[in-house]
Amino acid sequence: MDRIVIIGLGLIGGSLGMGLKASKLRDIEIVGVDCERDAALGARKKGAVDSTERMAAEAVKRAQLVILATPLMTFPEVLQEIAPHLPEGCVVTDTGSTKAKVMEWAEHYLPRNVSFVGGHPMAGRELAGIDAATTTLFQEATYCIVPAMEASKSAVEVVVGLASSVGAKPYFVGAAEHDMLVAGVSHLPLVLSAALVGVVSRSPSWNEMAILASSGFRDVSRLASTDPGLSRGISLTNQSGMLYWLDGFIQQLNDYRTAIAEKPEAFLQELAQVRDARDTWLLHQKQPAGQKGLPEVPSAGQQMMELFVGSRFSELLKKQEDSLRDMEKRRGPRS
Amino acid sequence: MDRIVIIGLGLIGGSLGMGLKASKLRDIEIVGVDCERDAALGARKKGAVDSTERMAAEAVKRAQLVILATPLMTFPEVLQEIAPHLPEGCVVTDTGSTKAKVMEWAEHYLPRNVSFVGGHPMAGRELAGIDAATTTLFQEATYCIVPAMEASKSAVEVVVGLASSVGAKPYFVGAAEHDMLVAGVSHLPLVLSAALVGVVSRSPSWNEMAILASSGFRDVSRLASTDPGLSRGISLTNQSGMLYWLDGFIQQLNDYRTAIAEKPEAFLQELAQVRDARDTWLLHQKQPAGQKGLPEVPSAGQQMMELFVGSRFSELLKKQEDSLRDMEKRRGPRS
Repeated sequence: MDRIVIIGLGLIGGSLGMGLKASKLRDIEIVGVDCERDAALGARKKGAVDSTERMAAEAVKRAQLVILATPLMTFPEVLQEIAPHLPEGCVVTDTGSTKAKVMEWAEHYLPRNVSFVGGHPMAGRELAGIDAATTTLFQEATYCIVPAMEASKSAVEVVVGLASSVGAKPYFVGAAEHDMLVAGVSHLPLVLSAALVGVVSRSPSWNEMAILASSGFRDVSRLASTDPGLSRGISLTNQSGMLYWLDGFIQQLNDYRTAIAEKPEAFLQELAQVRDARDTWLLHQKQPAGQKGLPEVPSAGQQMMELFVGSRFSELLKKQEDSLRDMEKRRGPRS
Repeated sequence: MDRIVIIGLGLIGGSLGMGLKASKLRDIEIVGVDCERDAALGARKKGAVDSTERMAAEAVKRAQLVILATPLMTFPEVLQEIAPHLPEGCVVTDTGSTKAKVMEWAEHYLPRNVSFVGGHPMAGRELAGIDAATTTLFQEATYCIVPAMEASKSAVEVVVGLASSVGAKPYFVGAAEHDMLVAGVSHLPLVLSAALVGVVSRSPSWNEMAILASSGFRDVSRLASTDPGLSRGISLTNQSGMLYWLDGFIQQLNDYRTAIAEKPEAFLQELAQVRDARDTWLLHQKQPAGQKGLPEVPSAGQQMMELFVGSRFSELLKKQEDSLRDMEKRRGPRS
């Protein structure tokens, strides 16, 4: 019987437990750990875990796989707590929103005789906590996998197995690359949602605007309701990624401003273009990978090879740098 | 039997017809007009109209109420076409996204012996066209009502009745005020959604980001898929409202940028504030008006009186101007 320990029984930890219980995996025992009694109770009631323990240090002693699903900024503390108690050969993974800092922490705190393989399932909900956990949260979601340099091949396979078992699609990616990519499609949208709510809700007309605000406002502002633990982890560990995209976005808005004021037809053309881009993306999301416009998610094996050879990663970093340079050039001297 | 003519059988026109048919109104005949044969056929099939006619000029001849639900930029043409054929005392309304320009057009093109009362139901969908129309689109939605100076009291009551019949909440507002308010909660979100898709989809890493983009990106980018006819009407008739809010938003983003880079704890505090603001708004949306935090929607009669006296409108415009001045002051000289 394999023992899987999930530390942190919120939306993500709870949904992983429920997904694993509903999967084809047999002969596993899932032990949950959460310092909040209600979360532990909720997880047991929902069948997300077979049992719960109070102390992470105790729970991990006979574990084959340990999943860190607490708020990201608690990782150093949790890693320190469990490190002396991890059995040799144990696989440790996490579900944190950023990866570069997490990989550093794992390298720093974990003993050499265990393998760390970072993880980030690309799924979430506006709601947080065990009550919001569902069996299907990760169905068809992309599951980022970031192996530490020293992680064994079999450890990587364990985490690929975890992702697949809950219905997600494993996607290998380097830590720095991951943080730059999610800064664009997750963290930038979070900042925009917040800034939208910030600017309108501080307006003297907010009372009237609140009456007129409808489904469009609700959706664009949704990420302003993000769980504070999540925002904290992102803001404190991915500042450079956020600033990179924020600069690009502000530049884009300034261009739009000029177009709206002076070239409305050009602005409308741009709107047609982004509409196409989004519709293509949406179609791809709804269809089996590779069928429409966007490239297929490479197979896990192929990705892993590329990643270890390093070609894809270095190529992407170079593209990012070129793009940044182009943007600076386009912008010209600040007026 | 009262004859209601709906010109333009898309999402909004079709849903109005369906809502009216499902309402308690008796002895009404709904005639639809659309130059596209499929839209007319679809509206008849869905029971949104009792019959359709090809020519708007013909259809309006015996109408008590005419609803313009074509794309906003077609209004001048449609108003010119129907003006000579409107019976005396007929009430004309519209469903356009902006109001100042529409009121000008109505004043310019319509004869003195009909009443124009502008309208804007605050509801929509990502999908457009008659196929997307539903009976319940306007349930609980705010329905902006902007009477022309010369509109008769009974004409205003007709449009209030229209809004109430389809389940919406009538809300009286001046044209300039309307355009400034919706610029903040509708048009600004549209520009942000578009700019988000613009900046990430032009990145050299878009292929990889598209794989990682999840529900957060989907929601924040939703308005980038807005119907082009809608975007066109907004962009060409509410530039000043859009620019006002865009400037405020860019300023807000620059402040956030500084905070993320230099004062992350202050940024996290701001996130907590906007989360509260949004959650309060959301709660209010879900509950009967006036129960939580935000002010109750004033009764239609009370609003109309205030509006005609002009107090609310002038007060709001003053607040907007003060806010703009404060913002300019805070910003200081451009660096």
